[in-house]
Amino acid sequence: MQVPVSIEWKDGQLTILDQQKLPHIIEFIDLTTIEEVFDAILSLKVRGAPAIGITAAYGLALAAESHDTDELDAFEAYVRKDADYLASSRPTAVNLAWALERLLSTLPCAASVADAKQQLFREAEAIRAEDEAACRQIGEHGLELLENKMRVMTICNAGSIATAKYGTALAPFHLGSERGKKFDVYACETRPVYQGARLTVWELQQSGVDVTLITDSMAAHTIGAKDIEAIIVGADRVAANGDTANKIGTLNLALLAHTFGIPFYVAAPVSTFDLSIDSGKDIPIEERKAEEITHFGDVPVAPAGTNVYNPAFDVTPSKYITAIITEKGVIEPDFHQNIAGLLTAAAGKGEQ
Amino acid sequence: MQVPVSIEWKDGQLTILDQQKLPHIIEFIDLTTIEEVFDAILSLKVRGAPAIGITAAYGLALAAESHDTDELDAFEAYVRKDADYLASSRPTAVNLAWALERLLSTLPCAASVADAKQQLFREAEAIRAEDEAACRQIGEHGLELLENKMRVMTICNAGSIATAKYGTALAPFHLGSERGKKFDVYACETRPVYQGARLTVWELQQSGVDVTLITDSMAAHTIGAKDIEAIIVGADRVAANGDTANKIGTLNLALLAHTFGIPFYVAAPVSTFDLSIDSGKDIPIEERKAEEITHFGDVPVAPAGTNVYNPAFDVTPSKYITAIITEKGVIEPDFHQNIAGLLTAAAGKGEQ
Repeated sequence: MQVPVSIEWKDGQLTILDQQKLPHIIEFIDLTTIEEVFDAILSLKVRGAPAIGITAAYGLALAAESHDTDELDAFEAYVRKDADYLASSRPTAVNLAWALERLLSTLPCAASVADAKQQLFREAEAIRAEDEAACRQIGEHGLELLENKMRVMTICNAGSIATAKYGTALAPFHLGSERGKKFDVYACETRPVYQGARLTVWELQQSGVDVTLITDSMAAHTIGAKDIEAIIVGADRVAANGDTANKIGTLNLALLAHTFGIPFYVAAPVSTFDLSIDSGKDIPIEERKAEEITHFGDVPVAPAGTNVYNPAFDVTPSKYITAIITEKGVIEPDFHQNIAGLLTAAAGKGEQ
Repeated sequence: MQVPVSIEWKDGQLTILDQQKLPHIIEFIDLTTIEEVFDAILSLKVRGAPAIGITAAYGLALAAESHDTDELDAFEAYVRKDADYLASSRPTAVNLAWALERLLSTLPCAASVADAKQQLFREAEAIRAEDEAACRQIGEHGLELLENKMRVMTICNAGSIATAKYGTALAPFHLGSERGKKFDVYACETRPVYQGARLTVWELQQSGVDVTLITDSMAAHTIGAKDIEAIIVGADRVAANGDTANKIGTLNLALLAHTFGIPFYVAAPVSTFDLSIDSGKDIPIEERKAEEITHFGDVPVAPAGTNVYNPAFDVTPSKYITAIITEKGVIEPDFHQNIAGLLTAAAGKGEQ
């Protein structure tokens, strides 16, 4: 039993878990060329914003290794071209562009091409290590709120394999499992793409966490019938007032937690906060293709020509959130004030 | 565009819609022997409690026609044997046993075998006609509550094809459509068996009702984003205090309706009320097999050996129900008093 990790860099070799094949086939694949890294990101073999960023960073460092020149300017031009290529694998993934930019920012200070190559690897490893540390801290803070043996519900996969390790919403369970704590986790299957059934169940099984799968429609009944004591979810984006965008179905759970009088926790790194957005009203909701709902793979479920509404996310108003668990600490209401306070303090420490 | 009907008796021929093939293949099949009727019920070609009862009733009358004797006692023995056989096709279907018993109760008064055969057909037709009339009345009362052009959400398939015609929760939409009224219906797909996606969407399309499919997890977001004005559902069983057992996911919707301040209606014939049950706490919740959640057909979604909780129904406390729409009228709180009152009045009229 151990916490699953989806990206490994060892002895000059980049290896990733093929998440497209989960949970039925557990296959690790070596990525040896920039084209393979590009394809792994494009074809969703790697998923989860932090995991994509980390993979791209290692991929850029790997590609840089093969550029055979002693000219720093020529080398930088090659690397920038590689970065543009990798960034185009998933143009909307903010974390991808951010990670590549961090690697590029090391180039101007390099003393030689050899030094530049080393710097790129060091920066990729730093991105990975920082993400693991942040997730571990989210786990630590989560364990202050979730007591041993609690029955907890979650949705989607804010998990270890989506990050360097531990994940966000699942971090307390993984970290707790390493320390002999027990949880009884109820995973919502997370329609339409089944991340709960496919990924969260598998991940928690790997860590030895007790996990039970339910459909999203069973949440209300299960909270009552199984005495669920808390709900914890991840976040795609948190506004300045604490309103949180996350996988569709999250709002259902938040409103149920409110009705049943149990705490509703959001677990998210501080990088998820977007203070340029005042409230959830300003978060655009992506709509996805109808086939995700009308079909299972290529097999139609609904009649041909069915009208579909398929929002990918929903926004939970902060008044339904008990606390937001970050790597820098737990934020409780008043969210507007306390989010700003925590981010300011975190930025201050970063500058020291 | 017309309201779909799943059972037809015409010129001595029993024809049913093969609901197993919906919504991709619309196939009507003739049932000419008692074995074919048995098989249609067993293999779920017919589904929905009222539809099963009606089909079995026609099936018994059909089989009786073929018994070649002038001896009433011998004829009755044949018919009783046939009824036992048909009843064994789905032993837990209360409506099936009830319909067959109604046909058998006509036998003692028959003057001859020819007369008995006529009586059986007449009783089968009476059961069908009464169910259609009840569903139509539920539609009428529903239309008193649901205004033209309303945006309404539903779950599962409390529909026309599950009954003689019109259905229960869907009756207002079908009846309204016949009268040129418009509704904007949002159908929850209804995991794990997708009755919403497979049946409700198809049914409403047949009637020309605007219908949009969502996953169950999208209910909360959709109520807000699409200004849903009411929710209407069917019922499997209603307790004396109004607590209502229905398809899993119904409780989710009831609690959301409460949170969003929109009415939550239950549509059910008076035969659904079980006054021997004081409250929902006494309604047993059937649990079904794990594969309904872990697999799509034969294709696994979740990892092998996944723990599953798969309750088929949930119970909505009556405090979350705005009104119960029956063929005898609309029941509003105090449910305990008003359910008893309506049933007493209905029984009194029945005796006149």
